[in-house]
Amino acid sequence: MDVRELAADYAALVAAGKMDEAAMKHWSDDLVTIEAMPGEMSQTRGKDEALAKARWWYENHEIHGFRSEGPFVNGDTFLIIMDIDVTPKGGKRISMREVVGYRVANDKVVEERYFY
Amino acid sequence: MDVRELAADYAALVAAGKMDEAAMKHWSDDLVTIEAMPGEMSQTRGKDEALAKARWWYENHEIHGFRSEGPFVNGDTFLIIMDIDVTPKGGKRISMREVVGYRVANDKVVEERYFY
Repeated sequence: MDVRELAADYAALVAAGKMDEAAMKHWSDDLVTIEAMPGEMSQTRGKDEALAKARWWYENHEIHGFRSEGPFVNGDTFLIIMDIDVTPKGGKRISMREVVGYRVANDKVVEERYFY
Repeated sequence: MDVRELAADYAALVAAGKMDEAAMKHWSDDLVTIEAMPGEMSQTRGKDEALAKARWWYENHEIHGFRSEGPFVNGDTFLIIMDIDVTPKGGKRISMREVVGYRVANDKVVEERYFY
């Protein structure tokens, strides 16, 4: 599968709110995720750890709105722009825009990197 | 200089339309640029080649509007979202959105990568 083709399918699933399906379909078992900031879970290694982190995130944030745009592709990497309107548990509601970078190898997403 | 600090300065110059100043101040002599599409000038090597390409681009495109947003930072890399309203010489006016990725090493931008 061409990177641009994989990117288009991934971005369409994300835009439809089907994050789980995107992950199950396209993540490598060895997926690494890299946050921009240091701290707990700033890096995860392996699909199971990434899924556990995602579950934790969804349990601890109330999402009011979500919009995504992309993909933007270059070589083995594609980017999706995400706008999230969210309240962290016990925190204040914030609107944030971030760009997520996905690196592809052997037809699977092997790295997810958060830019903000 | 911290990557986030360099990124903020670079993005502020770009947002002010001061592309030249951003290049002169922050590009490494060994800067590599990588377009998303194959073709002539799809990669340049060295600051001089990148500047020649930029000059060619400006001479062959009429810019009607430009807006940028960012930086979005992770590790050694920052991204700037660019909206360009442009007419290529002899072509049709188009509005395009692209994301440009900049990788930093030793306080200089060493790689520029165009995503679209």
